[in-house]
Amino acid sequence: MCALRRIKLIVSYDGTNYCGWQKQPNGVTIEEVLNKAASSLCGEEIEVIGASRTDSGVHAFGNVAVFDTDMKMDAGKFAFALNQRLPDDIRIQESYEVEKKWHPRKCDCIKTYIYRILNRKINIPTERLYAHFCYFRLDIDKMNEAAGYFIGTHDFTSFCSQKTQAQSPVRTIHLLEVLKDDDMITIAISGDGFLYNMIRIIAGTLIKVGMGVYPPSYIKEIFAAKNRRLAGQTMPAKGLTLVEIEYMD
Amino acid sequence: MCALRRIKLIVSYDGTNYCGWQKQPNGVTIEEVLNKAASSLCGEEIEVIGASRTDSGVHAFGNVAVFDTDMKMDAGKFAFALNQRLPDDIRIQESYEVEKKWHPRKCDCIKTYIYRILNRKINIPTERLYAHFCYFRLDIDKMNEAAGYFIGTHDFTSFCSQKTQAQSPVRTIHLLEVLKDDDMITIAISGDGFLYNMIRIIAGTLIKVGMGVYPPSYIKEIFAAKNRRLAGQTMPAKGLTLVEIEYMD
Repeated sequence: MCALRRIKLIVSYDGTNYCGWQKQPNGVTIEEVLNKAASSLCGEEIEVIGASRTDSGVHAFGNVAVFDTDMKMDAGKFAFALNQRLPDDIRIQESYEVEKKWHPRKCDCIKTYIYRILNRKINIPTERLYAHFCYFRLDIDKMNEAAGYFIGTHDFTSFCSQKTQAQSPVRTIHLLEVLKDDDMITIAISGDGFLYNMIRIIAGTLIKVGMGVYPPSYIKEIFAAKNRRLAGQTMPAKGLTLVEIEYMD
Repeated sequence: MCALRRIKLIVSYDGTNYCGWQKQPNGVTIEEVLNKAASSLCGEEIEVIGASRTDSGVHAFGNVAVFDTDMKMDAGKFAFALNQRLPDDIRIQESYEVEKKWHPRKCDCIKTYIYRILNRKINIPTERLYAHFCYFRLDIDKMNEAAGYFIGTHDFTSFCSQKTQAQSPVRTIHLLEVLKDDDMITIAISGDGFLYNMIRIIAGTLIKVGMGVYPPSYIKEIFAAKNRRLAGQTMPAKGLTLVEIEYMD
């Protein structure tokens, strides 16, 4: 019952057609499709363990997963062999062997996400599944000023869905910046972990600042109130992409 | 039977789910969906006339169409009103009134297309519908050197599908350049018109140069031979986007 080795995968996907990462009864999930491909490849019953259980519609460039197998194949080749068995909206970017005890959710890491907002009068069809469309002109300078208040270690109760199962609402944000390239605004955020819906609520709050509804300094008051209702709304999943998970060990 | 005014539309679309622009029996086309939306808006039987009859799977940011109507509405508002009646993979970017005799295929213009190639070891799922994936490393400098041979007025018989209905194989290319941003290679091409599959065959030929199969100067020989078989293959439609049509009058 104890497989010989643990393989780590860097997993990218277009989340549009999936009910998120985690197995569930109502629809097809990334985890399920990966389990099926790995089981077929290895000829064993395989269950992957994912680092980040992204929501329905969220995309990833570099989510991380591991699985255990007895299969004797050059570790780097698992990526190519799994891609042969996966639909084209899921691609394994890399595969390595890691220590048997290495766990993608139990090691210190920094996760980087981006939230993309297409800010123009009319949406662009080829971006509609990968960015949130916003008609109202957003002020990037104000959004960046507001972003500064999020950096550091805070109690994120106001920026978290009430459905969270986390034991502590305290998280550390290392980087939060708002970039603009033509009509596309990208919010880039790095931290050691995020509460449920936290990035999508931060994006919704920054949009309210960009629209002039909140002054940038109002972020301090939202933190202090520890009240979800003061923050902006939870932005749609399709704008969110998990870019990278960098492990400390 | 003679409608009062002619409205010009700038039309963008994600071509993934359409059998191209032009009405046909085998599947849904952009033209058909536009006709239905415009007829429903104006309460008349409307048939749009398109500038560029893009192939199945080709995308557009700025295709052009016109239609005639008796409807008395501020011309700029047709864009918004039509978008209410269109699926989200087609968006009208702008609408204007033009002279009744203005025809999008009978006026001098410069058309600009891009062909996108994702050049890396493994595809990125969110780009899979909007770029051609190429595993072999492409040499951009060689591709740009080859691109130079296309500029100007030439007989493009070698770079044209034999299915073409054009009377003359002579066309003028004003600009052809190959740009690189990280793993994404973009071939940008402007000209006064293109033969059937011409850009996708030029892209296939530049890819062969980039792979080192052809030296850049071989383009001269391909032109001289007037033989389709010497050029590269017709690249997939999904990499191609019609960016803009600029009219001279």
